[in-house]
Amino acid sequence: MKVIYKVWLDNNGKAFGEGPYELLKRVEQTQSLHQAANQMGMAYSKAGQSFGSRSKGSVFPCLDRKVGGRSGGGSQITARAKNLMKHYEGFRKMWKKAMRKSYRRHFGYLEEGVSI
Amino acid sequence: MKVIYKVWLDNNGKAFGEGPYELLKRVEQTQSLHQAANQMGMAYSKAGQSFGSRSKGSVFPCLDRKVGGRSGGGSQITARAKNLMKHYEGFRKMWKKAMRKSYRRHFGYLEEGVSI
Repeated sequence: MKVIYKVWLDNNGKAFGEGPYELLKRVEQTQSLHQAANQMGMAYSKAGQSFGSRSKGSVFPCLDRKVGGRSGGGSQITARAKNLMKHYEGFRKMWKKAMRKSYRRHFGYLEEGVSI
Repeated sequence: MKVIYKVWLDNNGKAFGEGPYELLKRVEQTQSLHQAANQMGMAYSKAGQSFGSRSKGSVFPCLDRKVGGRSGGGSQITARAKNLMKHYEGFRKMWKKAMRKSYRRHFGYLEEGVSI
C-alpha cells in the first residue's frame, strides 16, 4: 500500500504545479526557454505559451524574454515568479512532510514500498 | 489563488480514495449496494465490480453480498473494509489540516477563496 497525490495551485483556472515549477527552475539555471524546454522534452512553443509575457496559461507573467540581439536572445524569470517559486518550495516541503507523517500514523501497519 | 489536490491510496494498482470511501459509507448506512450506487448516480454493475467479493477493482474484498432470499438480499461491508475506512478517515483529516496550514503559511498573502 502507498499513497499517491497530485497537488497544484490554481489561479482563476490557471494552474501552477510540478511541471511549471520545473520549467521555471530550468529557465532560471540556463537563462534560456529553449534549453529549459529541451531538457524537459517539451515543445518550445508550448513552453512559450505557458510562460510568455502574455501568460495565456500561467498564473501570471513569469518570464522576461528577449528575442535576438547580440547575445542571441534569452529568457529570465520575473521577480514575481521567483517569489512564487520560493513560496511553492516551502509549501511543498511542508505538506509533503505532513503527508508522510499522516500516512505513517494511520497506515504504518500496512506499510510496504510507500512512494512518497 | 487556491490549492487543488487529489489523494488516494494504491495497493498494487488498485485504488482507494474519496469515491470508493463514499460508496462504502453509503452501503454501511443503507445495507444495500443498489441504494448506495443509486445515491451516487453510479451503475450498479460498476459498483459491484469495484467492491464485489472477487474485488477486481478494490484494494481487497470490502463487501459481503447476499443475493435474494427472504429479505431480498443486501450488502454489508466487511470488518476489513470498516477498518480501512476508519484509518482513511484519520489519515484524510490529518493531511487536510496540514495542507491548509501549509497553504496559509506560504500563500496566506495571496489568499482569496481557498477551496479546501
